[in-house]
Amino acid sequence: MNQPKIKHALPVKRDEDFAQWYQAVIAEAELAEESGVRGCMVIKPWGYGIWERIQKLMDARIKEAGVENCYFPLFIPLSYFAKEADHVEGFAKEMAVVTHHRLVSDPKGGLMPDPEAKLEEPLVVRPTSETVIGAAMARWVQSWRDLPLLTNQWANVVRWEMRTRMFLRTSEFLWQEGHTAHADEADAMEETLRALEMYRSFAQDVLALPVIAGPKPENERFPGAVATYSIEAMMQDGKALQAGTSHYLGTTFSQAAGIRYQDKDGQQTLCHTTSWGVSTRLIGGVIMTHGDDDGLRTPPQVAPHQIVILPMLRDNEGDEALLAYCEDLRKALAKLSVFDEKVRVLLDKRPGKATAKRWAWVKKGVPLILEIGGRDAENGQVSAVRRDRLWREDGKVNFVGQAKDDFVANAVAELESIQAALFAEAAARRDAQIERGVTDLDGLAAYFAEDRKFPGWVELGWSRPTGAALDKVVEQLKALKLTIRNTPLDAPVPSGTCPFTGEPAVETILIARAY
Amino acid sequence: MNQPKIKHALPVKRDEDFAQWYQAVIAEAELAEESGVRGCMVIKPWGYGIWERIQKLMDARIKEAGVENCYFPLFIPLSYFAKEADHVEGFAKEMAVVTHHRLVSDPKGGLMPDPEAKLEEPLVVRPTSETVIGAAMARWVQSWRDLPLLTNQWANVVRWEMRTRMFLRTSEFLWQEGHTAHADEADAMEETLRALEMYRSFAQDVLALPVIAGPKPENERFPGAVATYSIEAMMQDGKALQAGTSHYLGTTFSQAAGIRYQDKDGQQTLCHTTSWGVSTRLIGGVIMTHGDDDGLRTPPQVAPHQIVILPMLRDNEGDEALLAYCEDLRKALAKLSVFDEKVRVLLDKRPGKATAKRWAWVKKGVPLILEIGGRDAENGQVSAVRRDRLWREDGKVNFVGQAKDDFVANAVAELESIQAALFAEAAARRDAQIERGVTDLDGLAAYFAEDRKFPGWVELGWSRPTGAALDKVVEQLKALKLTIRNTPLDAPVPSGTCPFTGEPAVETILIARAY
Repeated sequence: MNQPKIKHALPVKRDEDFAQWYQAVIAEAELAEESGVRGCMVIKPWGYGIWERIQKLMDARIKEAGVENCYFPLFIPLSYFAKEADHVEGFAKEMAVVTHHRLVSDPKGGLMPDPEAKLEEPLVVRPTSETVIGAAMARWVQSWRDLPLLTNQWANVVRWEMRTRMFLRTSEFLWQEGHTAHADEADAMEETLRALEMYRSFAQDVLALPVIAGPKPENERFPGAVATYSIEAMMQDGKALQAGTSHYLGTTFSQAAGIRYQDKDGQQTLCHTTSWGVSTRLIGGVIMTHGDDDGLRTPPQVAPHQIVILPMLRDNEGDEALLAYCEDLRKALAKLSVFDEKVRVLLDKRPGKATAKRWAWVKKGVPLILEIGGRDAENGQVSAVRRDRLWREDGKVNFVGQAKDDFVANAVAELESIQAALFAEAAARRDAQIERGVTDLDGLAAYFAEDRKFPGWVELGWSRPTGAALDKVVEQLKALKLTIRNTPLDAPVPSGTCPFTGEPAVETILIARAY
Repeated sequence: MNQPKIKHALPVKRDEDFAQWYQAVIAEAELAEESGVRGCMVIKPWGYGIWERIQKLMDARIKEAGVENCYFPLFIPLSYFAKEADHVEGFAKEMAVVTHHRLVSDPKGGLMPDPEAKLEEPLVVRPTSETVIGAAMARWVQSWRDLPLLTNQWANVVRWEMRTRMFLRTSEFLWQEGHTAHADEADAMEETLRALEMYRSFAQDVLALPVIAGPKPENERFPGAVATYSIEAMMQDGKALQAGTSHYLGTTFSQAAGIRYQDKDGQQTLCHTTSWGVSTRLIGGVIMTHGDDDGLRTPPQVAPHQIVILPMLRDNEGDEALLAYCEDLRKALAKLSVFDEKVRVLLDKRPGKATAKRWAWVKKGVPLILEIGGRDAENGQVSAVRRDRLWREDGKVNFVGQAKDDFVANAVAELESIQAALFAEAAARRDAQIERGVTDLDGLAAYFAEDRKFPGWVELGWSRPTGAALDKVVEQLKALKLTIRNTPLDAPVPSGTCPFTGEPAVETILIARAY
């Protein structure tokens, strides 16, 4: 028996070349493109629309926690960086440096920086804002009454990257960075974990990304941090994506910037600070988790349009009645609420072939796509397809005809169902690809063998080595192109022996290839 | 009879020193502060909250017009700028230039740009994005079917300013920049005027700023523009503030970037483009229009909190009932809608003296401030003051006691009334300060004489000179520290003679000192 042949919309399939497929989704779904400026991308309306959704829903959670938005300078004087040695060590290799403030004509033609307009102190384009926000905190915090100080900013940052990949690693990217100051370690650690949990639940509930939250090993900490926590998501090629981080910074930046408060006993005391962020990288995670061979499948919570109505226009006198029917349908759907917001529905009246328009929305991943013909309008019908169930077994697109009123009555449940289905599918795939049977280095190497396509993650117990012993583990893993992702917060205390040190295992770690 | 003495909240009054007063409002209302980074400010929660309100309401209008948000690179290669001579001439003097992508230790101590990490082509930090968006448009526009192309971005931009003033002129500022491409001049001009009208009505309806919209004279055009339109607002010191601009760019940037389309006859044709923007400067306009000697008066449409409830806590057993009463009141108010959104109400439970907290909110300009004592709670009363009617004639704060239910029933009307009152006050002041009786240069000089405090604007007819004749007018005005603001769109055709050229007047212009 011949399997019916499905003609997928993308020029390359996930299992043919995952990296090429990823680029194809971004291009075909019109999410972003190379800008012509080294390492910087242009985020196109559909991609930026997803980011706006992420911003809106994350910002509500940030504000709900009592954190206030501010805006801090793009430029950071060199001297601010020089104050914090670990921090500059971690970032100095990848920063854009402003040295001049004017251009002049170049005698050789074109323009050049004006030698007479050289800055006395070069400025760094922020790669992250601990130093410049620390300087503000030092001004703002005087007394224990000023604490905790909870700030956040939505901003662009620049880290000079040699190899870039859209959304995942670009020289400029967009993010939010929370920065908080506290009276003591306990309060700062509580905030660090609050932000981590905010990210975990956001990834799960909004982006339908199953993630594992936990502290990173000391070699993977943010430059200057005492502890770094991450959420890690598994992509469809089995690799890990660090999708958000939350740092307990101890007094590192308080010391560098002089963030001190007078405590209740009148003593000048250093604050304990935190920082935490998520970025446009999340969109890369959504693509590599929910995309399929027909493009993106956008989770309903972040889809700029949750429902698109396509009238099958014929450029004849029947179009008017058809459009009126579709507009009625649009209005009925737009009145509904899902996930505590109005349903976002678009009636796509643009000229052009209905099939071409259909595939454009399929590739963008609109959760529900409706095609309405003249006969549907006459009969009070709609024809709808769920993006997560695009194909029938016979290789045809899975459009289902139903009465318009039934569709409207069921639309909210359908969107909720799609959101839940995307999460369930990703969680099942992730869970099936966590290997817990590895007990030694040979087993680890075998699991990640070169000829094995899309291995997942290995979860194992280790003895939590530090210093030189940890360095050795990191080297052994690096030879296999592996890294330790984190120590899952809810993992049980392991039994057995650490495969790296032979000592008793004391905690569970996740090992993976990673983006 | 002695006038009762009002003790205003600011250390300096408007009529003592307007510039100092402006700085005092920004400091005392905690809107922003100097960052320590040259020319860059830190926007604090209240100031950023106002910006978030502006963003939200402007973004809705932008989207309503069918314009889609994108994000374009922060960095612009030098070669992009070199393509458009007028444009670079206008901006080259004030741009931040990135020349290196790494830091190393300086042998003299500290850090320095790594000489081995010099960029082959320096990058400019965008002062505006016509060139880099033009390059994207050239990729996106192929056929007449792709037009109009309507894009916008919310972004930070950098113009190196020698003399900076918070919100009005900072090296880095936040803005939105709309960029559109059209098939012909008529369509592009329609978009230019649509954006202008969007800004005019936004300034009036949302910010309560009366503004005058019209084209700028050719010497005041945006670098590279064929026509520049502005909205001009009058500050309380009589100076003009350009509060938004909209540019018809002709084919200037299409030629430079190659934005061409195949028209219906198959011909390759240059697009006509526009750009338009408003920035954090609007907040400076709100301060200098609505501020008084007690701080800011924030228009209800953009106030982060429209109503603040201050319980008069006594740290005793009565506090619990008082807080419960206030929480009930908060809930009742939060259910109301004004200006098509939920009322934004804060119950300020922080510890601290009620009077100190009152004055902090007065200085921030919260439209309605409520103080609730234990007796109010017992009697079902509230005591409320409108920020725009802060003082009684006897020099006391104008708190009015009323039944709680009456206050709730009337709160929406009160907020609408405050919004309208701020606009009416500003419009009356502006209208009274437009002088239409000037007929010659001596009259102009007399109106703006050095010893005259806070002159307004002069509206007069001129002969619309161009080229060298215009240059001469500009020089004459410059000697009086004056500029031509714009040609009001709705001004009548003047009679009489142009005071500059002696020729018959053909159009009406506004002349003013300006920020």
